[in-house]
Amino acid sequence: MGEREENFIEWLNNVLFTAQIYDYRYPVKGMGIWMPYGYKLRQNVINIMRKLLDKTGHEEVLFPLLIPRTMLEREATHIKGFMGEVFWVTRGGKSRLDMELALRPTSETSMTTAFRDWIQSWKDLPLKVYQVVSVFRYETKSTRPLIRVREISTFKEAFTAHATSEDAWRQFREAISIYKRFFNALGIPYIISSRLPWDRFAGADETVTFDTIMPDGRALQIGSVHYLGQRFSKAFDAKFMTEKGKYEHIYQLSYGISERVIASIIAVHSDELGPILPPNVAPIQVVIVPIPYKEVEEAVYKYARRIYDELKRRRLRVHLDDDPEETPGSKFYKWERRGVPLRVEVGPRDLENGGATLVRRDTRERLFVKLEQLAEEIRRTMRVMLREMKERAWREFKARLKPAKSLEEIGEVVKNRMIAIVPWCGSEECAHEIEDLTGYKILGKPLRKPRKSRDKCPVCGRSSITILYVGRSY
Amino acid sequence: MGEREENFIEWLNNVLFTAQIYDYRYPVKGMGIWMPYGYKLRQNVINIMRKLLDKTGHEEVLFPLLIPRTMLEREATHIKGFMGEVFWVTRGGKSRLDMELALRPTSETSMTTAFRDWIQSWKDLPLKVYQVVSVFRYETKSTRPLIRVREISTFKEAFTAHATSEDAWRQFREAISIYKRFFNALGIPYIISSRLPWDRFAGADETVTFDTIMPDGRALQIGSVHYLGQRFSKAFDAKFMTEKGKYEHIYQLSYGISERVIASIIAVHSDELGPILPPNVAPIQVVIVPIPYKEVEEAVYKYARRIYDELKRRRLRVHLDDDPEETPGSKFYKWERRGVPLRVEVGPRDLENGGATLVRRDTRERLFVKLEQLAEEIRRTMRVMLREMKERAWREFKARLKPAKSLEEIGEVVKNRMIAIVPWCGSEECAHEIEDLTGYKILGKPLRKPRKSRDKCPVCGRSSITILYVGRSY
Repeated sequence: MGEREENFIEWLNNVLFTAQIYDYRYPVKGMGIWMPYGYKLRQNVINIMRKLLDKTGHEEVLFPLLIPRTMLEREATHIKGFMGEVFWVTRGGKSRLDMELALRPTSETSMTTAFRDWIQSWKDLPLKVYQVVSVFRYETKSTRPLIRVREISTFKEAFTAHATSEDAWRQFREAISIYKRFFNALGIPYIISSRLPWDRFAGADETVTFDTIMPDGRALQIGSVHYLGQRFSKAFDAKFMTEKGKYEHIYQLSYGISERVIASIIAVHSDELGPILPPNVAPIQVVIVPIPYKEVEEAVYKYARRIYDELKRRRLRVHLDDDPEETPGSKFYKWERRGVPLRVEVGPRDLENGGATLVRRDTRERLFVKLEQLAEEIRRTMRVMLREMKERAWREFKARLKPAKSLEEIGEVVKNRMIAIVPWCGSEECAHEIEDLTGYKILGKPLRKPRKSRDKCPVCGRSSITILYVGRSY
Repeated sequence: MGEREENFIEWLNNVLFTAQIYDYRYPVKGMGIWMPYGYKLRQNVINIMRKLLDKTGHEEVLFPLLIPRTMLEREATHIKGFMGEVFWVTRGGKSRLDMELALRPTSETSMTTAFRDWIQSWKDLPLKVYQVVSVFRYETKSTRPLIRVREISTFKEAFTAHATSEDAWRQFREAISIYKRFFNALGIPYIISSRLPWDRFAGADETVTFDTIMPDGRALQIGSVHYLGQRFSKAFDAKFMTEKGKYEHIYQLSYGISERVIASIIAVHSDELGPILPPNVAPIQVVIVPIPYKEVEEAVYKYARRIYDELKRRRLRVHLDDDPEETPGSKFYKWERRGVPLRVEVGPRDLENGGATLVRRDTRERLFVKLEQLAEEIRRTMRVMLREMKERAWREFKARLKPAKSLEEIGEVVKNRMIAIVPWCGSEECAHEIEDLTGYKILGKPLRKPRKSRDKCPVCGRSSITILYVGRSY
């Protein structure tokens, strides 16, 4: 068991900086810098999400960061949940502001304000928008890079408005399906669960979350979908005219993902050296490293450049590392630690044989490929690699989900860095007891009830009607 | 003279909302919402800039929004210039923050902090990064949509670090050339001028700005390039090791553009109906409006759909407006007001003749085009249109630059909604006098001295050595 499992957060912090993804040394707690390489990774990941959202009729918008206190306080349950963690702007220049302004912790209130202005009749519905922005939470718990930050600098938040509750629930299922496709595209395994009532988003009638598992066994919530119903539309008086000419309040959802997805990519696809970036989002998919020998140095560099030009022309994200002052071995190590999925080595023998040696970052497999087939072989390898990375991640993930039939077993399972699957009678009292007696957290229950079993609730001993996921979580 | 000239800001505000670009009704002064259509326009514009920056070796990053007070105050001239307009976060949850945090008004201080960490030796130079973010200014003057806002929500700020002053000045010229190409691509006319010393960016040794002219005759600064020299690197102790092994402070630049470029596109390319969006950035390049007649309704709709599919396949940004409940006339008007550059009308006669009628938004020219040539003709027309829009904009711009040889003439020129070109002896005292006596603002002087003339400075009567641009400005 290595650093990654034993001391995950420190490992993550080091890897993020070594790979030049995210610099967490910024002198404000819980805030970090996306470095050029990390920014590209982030963009590639966001663009997968954008495509999924655009295809399903969502449109991108950009709202102001600042939310006036009165707006944020308008829906009572919501503000109750967020009040403790809002950053407040109270001064401009030397003047005290008349109205304190919140750095948005989330945007339900400003969106509903705009929806009220934008939506007149049923013809304007459904309305589906999203934005990718920073949101701010004054976290009092320990902050962790990308995982628990005070500036969530990559928050994709979607908001929809519907004429009927049926249509809103249909959208709820669509949102879940979009997130499934998103995490599948990145090979990140997950469980989908419904939060118990006291654990829902502040203002939601139902919250479904996606959780993955970090190498230290803790669950990480990486996506959530909230059914808001008419709670906000009633508080903000956001109405529309129905086909029959009556006025009704809109039905709303919100759903979000954050840079935790980047943390997950790195946590899930990595080894002792660092990240293995999925080829579909890697900023550099292929690094070319020439291996010059005396007397054929010139020829090798020239040949490497030719390969670079060809791969570039074939629209691969390729980098040529031909610095003559660094050894090939040092380059191999450097690019492995930056997570580049494929390496092309070009030595005198490759030159002689009219090809190059392709090396996979994950399996270290080596393959000599003729120049004419190189681009095609790289594409094929990237596809295979992504599929195998995904399969490996799911295998490891599933091995960390373990049934536990008693409170003692829950303790053992969680101590062994796993998530416990616990039979449950359905009573909220027993759920509270499970959390109180084990000290662990209930992530939620599955969306559909599992097949009938003869298991008993570990608290009251009655027959279980479903299960709960229990573990430690970030 | 219409609303656009007489009452430009109100006109702009209305047009922005009618065209569904920017909703300025958000209940915090100086902050607005980018609506879906406006967001796409904004993205298309930013992407032109991104391409120019990427091609010249700039890399995108993303820095935290919040800057601790001590960091912001570290360079004295800088903070002196910005102190009056900083928004301050002073509370998190219910606690007072130990260290007050500024919403970044600009990012020289946080960038220099990171540069100090990132740059070790001359091998790391030059370093060229940029980010597209919100910056905040607590403006005490009247705010105007996109033009003077408190949340500048589209600030592209670039920062570079160099080993020598020569290399920094070379970059200074590159930055100017990038901005020229950017504004040229959008057909926005400009003058480039060097700011007089008291009017430079706070902390810069030289500031060059791009100014365009609004329909009401006021100048609008739409881009600026700052030579920072070693002022910040000395304050932050950002050093690098030279080839000779010595330690020296880096040389720095910063340069920025904002959403004022979107305001300029709309101001410069518009008529009494609203904007005429340049085809290269228009979210919808072509709108197809079927003109159904009784008995051939079905056929016309089907034909319009076929044209839509074909243009879509040819990668044009095309929209089909086939709502049967709205008249074609109403649709024409609606899409004209949203600035769509081209309309394709499809009626029974077009169907009969196997083509469609192409209508230009700017000239209203109509052209029947055979279906097989339609996509190609649209592309050709878009090119012609962009060129002609640009030529028209430059003609109108140049007509607003007028020589003025006395203080009285300056007054007349500016009152007539123009910018005065004023001979100047080069003395700062006379420049101050010009501003004080006319009540107008000096935008700057040209980068190169103009050809010798016999003109006299209107204040002291000595021979002029260059000119000044004088006018009203936003």
